[in-house]
Amino acid sequence: MAKNPKTKIEYADLDPIFTPKSVAVVGATDKPGKVGHAIMLNYIDAGFSGALYPVNINGESFIIGHKAYKSVLDIGEDIDLAVISVPAKYVGGVMEECGRAGVGGVVVVSSGFAEVGQTKLQDELAAVSKKYKMPMVGPNCLGVMDVRGRNDTLFLPTFKIDRPKVGGVSFASQSGSIGASTLDLMSSAGFGLSRFISYGNAAVVDEVDILNYLAHDRHTQVIVFYLEGVKRGKAFIETAKVATKLKPVVIIKSGSTNAGAGAAQSHTASLAGSYEAYRAVFRQYGFTEAEDADDLLHFAKIFDTQPLTSGKRIAVITNGGGHGVLATDAIYKNGLALPRLDKRTEDALRRVMPATVNVRMPLDIGGDADDKRFADALRAVSNDPNVDALMVIALFQTPGADDRVSESIINYAAKRQKPMVVVSSGGAYTKSHVAVMENSGVPVYESTTAAARSLAALIGYAAYREAVLQGYASPSKRME
Amino acid sequence: MAKNPKTKIEYADLDPIFTPKSVAVVGATDKPGKVGHAIMLNYIDAGFSGALYPVNINGESFIIGHKAYKSVLDIGEDIDLAVISVPAKYVGGVMEECGRAGVGGVVVVSSGFAEVGQTKLQDELAAVSKKYKMPMVGPNCLGVMDVRGRNDTLFLPTFKIDRPKVGGVSFASQSGSIGASTLDLMSSAGFGLSRFISYGNAAVVDEVDILNYLAHDRHTQVIVFYLEGVKRGKAFIETAKVATKLKPVVIIKSGSTNAGAGAAQSHTASLAGSYEAYRAVFRQYGFTEAEDADDLLHFAKIFDTQPLTSGKRIAVITNGGGHGVLATDAIYKNGLALPRLDKRTEDALRRVMPATVNVRMPLDIGGDADDKRFADALRAVSNDPNVDALMVIALFQTPGADDRVSESIINYAAKRQKPMVVVSSGGAYTKSHVAVMENSGVPVYESTTAAARSLAALIGYAAYREAVLQGYASPSKRME
Repeated sequence: MAKNPKTKIEYADLDPIFTPKSVAVVGATDKPGKVGHAIMLNYIDAGFSGALYPVNINGESFIIGHKAYKSVLDIGEDIDLAVISVPAKYVGGVMEECGRAGVGGVVVVSSGFAEVGQTKLQDELAAVSKKYKMPMVGPNCLGVMDVRGRNDTLFLPTFKIDRPKVGGVSFASQSGSIGASTLDLMSSAGFGLSRFISYGNAAVVDEVDILNYLAHDRHTQVIVFYLEGVKRGKAFIETAKVATKLKPVVIIKSGSTNAGAGAAQSHTASLAGSYEAYRAVFRQYGFTEAEDADDLLHFAKIFDTQPLTSGKRIAVITNGGGHGVLATDAIYKNGLALPRLDKRTEDALRRVMPATVNVRMPLDIGGDADDKRFADALRAVSNDPNVDALMVIALFQTPGADDRVSESIINYAAKRQKPMVVVSSGGAYTKSHVAVMENSGVPVYESTTAAARSLAALIGYAAYREAVLQGYASPSKRME
Repeated sequence: MAKNPKTKIEYADLDPIFTPKSVAVVGATDKPGKVGHAIMLNYIDAGFSGALYPVNINGESFIIGHKAYKSVLDIGEDIDLAVISVPAKYVGGVMEECGRAGVGGVVVVSSGFAEVGQTKLQDELAAVSKKYKMPMVGPNCLGVMDVRGRNDTLFLPTFKIDRPKVGGVSFASQSGSIGASTLDLMSSAGFGLSRFISYGNAAVVDEVDILNYLAHDRHTQVIVFYLEGVKRGKAFIETAKVATKLKPVVIIKSGSTNAGAGAAQSHTASLAGSYEAYRAVFRQYGFTEAEDADDLLHFAKIFDTQPLTSGKRIAVITNGGGHGVLATDAIYKNGLALPRLDKRTEDALRRVMPATVNVRMPLDIGGDADDKRFADALRAVSNDPNVDALMVIALFQTPGADDRVSESIINYAAKRQKPMVVVSSGGAYTKSHVAVMENSGVPVYESTTAAARSLAALIGYAAYREAVLQGYASPSKRME
C-alpha cells in the first residue's frame, strides 16, 4: 500500500456525513434494482427533511420526482454529503468534483477497491479526500444512518430490513452484512438507535475516527462495534481511553482464530492481528467484549436501559423453581453471587408471602404467583441493602401470570432504582408479554445464561469506570 | 428417608401412563382456575380419543359434560391411567383405591411432599405403588404428554402455552417450570414432539426409568433431558450406555455450581452431587451436554433433522463476507475446520460463479447472490469429497435474496445427503423465511456460534456412536 494519506479528522468533521442538511446521490437512477435507485428511495421513504439532489452523468431532468444534475458541480447549492454509487473507476473523478464543489463529506458505497486487490485505486480516493479535507466513509460499505435526522445511505430494500426507532444505541460495523443483519435484529427487538455506520475498507474514516465521533456524540449512550481489524493501534487505544470513560463500548472482534483472521483479510483487506493482543487491549481499556452477535444485542440492551452498579450480589425472584436453579448456576459461572438477605427483608417477605414460599435465595414465589406477589417480592428484595441488582424470572406458562405481572415488573422498572433483568421464555403468549415489557424499557432475556452474562457485562464496566474515574470522584462518593 | 421401596420398572410398564386408552382424573372439578379443571379441559381440548372419567369425592353427577364418579372404584371399567390432583394428605388413600381398581399407572401432580420436607407422606405413596406394581410419576410434577395419542395431563391453561406438532423429539424434565417453558419454546419454534414428561420428585418413576423408556420408544428419535440429580447412579450409567447407542441424548444438568446444587436440593429434594462427576459420566457414555436452554433447542433441532457425520470439515457458503469471518472463527473455536476444496470443485465453481467471487473457503458468493447462485454453490460444494457438512449463511437483507433462495436451500435439504445448518438473522422479513425453512425441516440458527456449536454436537455424537458400535459395524464400513 502507498504512503498513508491520513489527515487527522476531528469528530466535528463527520457531522456533514451523519447529520447533513443537503445530500447529493451520485449514481442516482430511476431504474429499480440499482443501488442508486435504492438509496434515493430510502431517503424519500425515511422522510429526509433536507435537500436531496440526484446526480447522474446521463443527464436526466428528473430522477424519482427530484430535479437531477449531471454533476455535483452543477447543483450550485451547499452540499453537506455526497453518497457515491458509481463504478469503481469513476469514483475518483466524482470525488474530485465533490472536492471542487466544497462537499462536506462523502460516503462511497461502490466496491472494487482494496478488497479485490485494487489498492492503488483506493489510495487515489484517499488522496482526493486529503487534498480537499473532505472525509470519506468507505469504499465498499453501506454507509451511514442517522435515525433522528432520517439520513439513510443504505441501499437495502426497505421491506427487507426493519428500521429502528430513535434511541441511544449507536452501532458501527466494518462489515456491511453484519451491519445490516444486526441493525435488522436490533430494530426487530425494539431497540432505539441513534447512529449506524458500515465503514467497509476504511480508506480514510476508520475505526478510530468513528469511535471518537460516537464517544463525543451526545445522542449516543451506548456504542456497539463490530471490528475486523484496527489500522492505527496507538490512536485506537488513546481514543478508547476517552470513550470508555464516557460511555459503555460493546465490541466484537472477528478473526479471533487464525483461520478467521485469514478470512477477514480477504473480506475487507483487514489485518486482523493477534487476537490475544486485542483482547488484552479490550480488557485494559474498559471495552465490553462480546463473544458473538447474540452477546452484542444482549449487552446493548442492558446498557441502554439499566443504571450502572459495580455490586455483584444478584437477587433472584422466580415463579419457577427449576429456573431458579439454572439462574443460580449462571450467576456464579459469571463471577457474580446471590446475596444473603437482610433479616428485615426476610421478615418482610414472611409477612407477605404464603407459608409455602421458602424465604431464601433464589426466591421461588411459586407457580401460582400473581402480580401482587411479584410486586411484594420486588419491593422487599430491592430494598435490601445486600442486593445490588435483580434477576426476575417471570414464566407466563404458569396459572398465576398474566398481563398484570408484566405491569408489576414495568412499574418497578420505571423507578430505575437498582438494575434489573427479566427472564421470560416461551411461545406466542409469552412473546406478547415480552414485547410489552421491552417496549417499556425492561431488558428481557430468553435464558438465565444471557441474563447473567449481561449483568456481568454491566457490572464489569461499572467497576472499570469507577476505577478510572477514582481521581475525579469525591472521596465520600468512593467510600459508599 | 425410609427404605427405598423401588421395584424394577420395565419400560413397557410405563405404556399405560404414556399411551392410555382410558384416563381417570381424580380431583376433577367444574370450577375454573382449579388444577382438576385445567386437566379435564386439556384432555377435552387435545381431542383425547380414549375414555375420560372425572372423579370427585363430592359426588357430582357430571363434570364438564362427563359422567363423574366418587371413587375410581365406582367406574367399573379398565383404567390405564389415573391423574391425581387432590391435596397431599388424600393422595395415599386415592392411590390405594387405584391399586384395588387395577389402574395401570398414576401421575400425581399434587405437591406438598419431599420438596417441603414431607418425605414420610411421599414414602407412603411409593409403598402403595410398589404394593400394587402400579408405576407412579411425581408427585410435584406436570406429568406427561403424548402428542400422537393426545394424552395430556398438564394443568397449564392452553392459551398460555403453545402445543407442539407430532414429531421425533421427546423431552423429559425434572422441573415443571423448565419443562413448560421449554415445551412452549419448542412448539413455538415448530419442533415436532413425541413425548413430554415432567417427573418432579421422582418418588417411583425416576430418570433411569424414563431414559430407558424413551430409549426403547420407537416414536422417539432424539431424547432431551433436563436433570437436577440422579438417585441411582449405576443404573443410570447402564441405561445410558444402551440409550446413546440407539439415539442421541441431549442433557442439561442444573446445579453445576455449589450454589446451584443447593438451590436444586430445595427445589425437588435432589442431591445434585459433584458436577464434575456428572460431566465425566456424560462424556464417557456419549451424552450431548447442553450448557443452557438455548443449547437444548439448538442441539435437538440438528439431531431431529440432519443425518449424522463424524467428519469435521465444514464448508461455509455465505452471501455476507463478515458472517463468513465469524463462521470461520466459530467453526475453529468448536474444534471443527474448514475444508480445502478439491481442485475439481474449484474449477466447477469458477465456471458458474461471477469473476468477483473468490473461490475459497469461506465461500462468499456476494451480496447480490440469487437463488441460482446459492443452488450452484450448494451443488458444487456438497459434492466435494473433502466436505463433511455445510453451513449456509443466507442473509435476507441483501438485494439478491428472496423466497427463491429459501426454496433452493429447502431443495438441497430434501436430499439429506450431507448435514447442513443455515444461519439467517434479522427482523420480520428474515423471520418469515426462517419459518418456511424450519417447517421444511431445515435447521436455521440466528448466529454462527449456535450453528457451529450444533454441528460440533452432531459430529461429537456421531464419533462416539461409531466408536462404540465398532464391534457391530462391518470392517469395510469402518474403513470409509
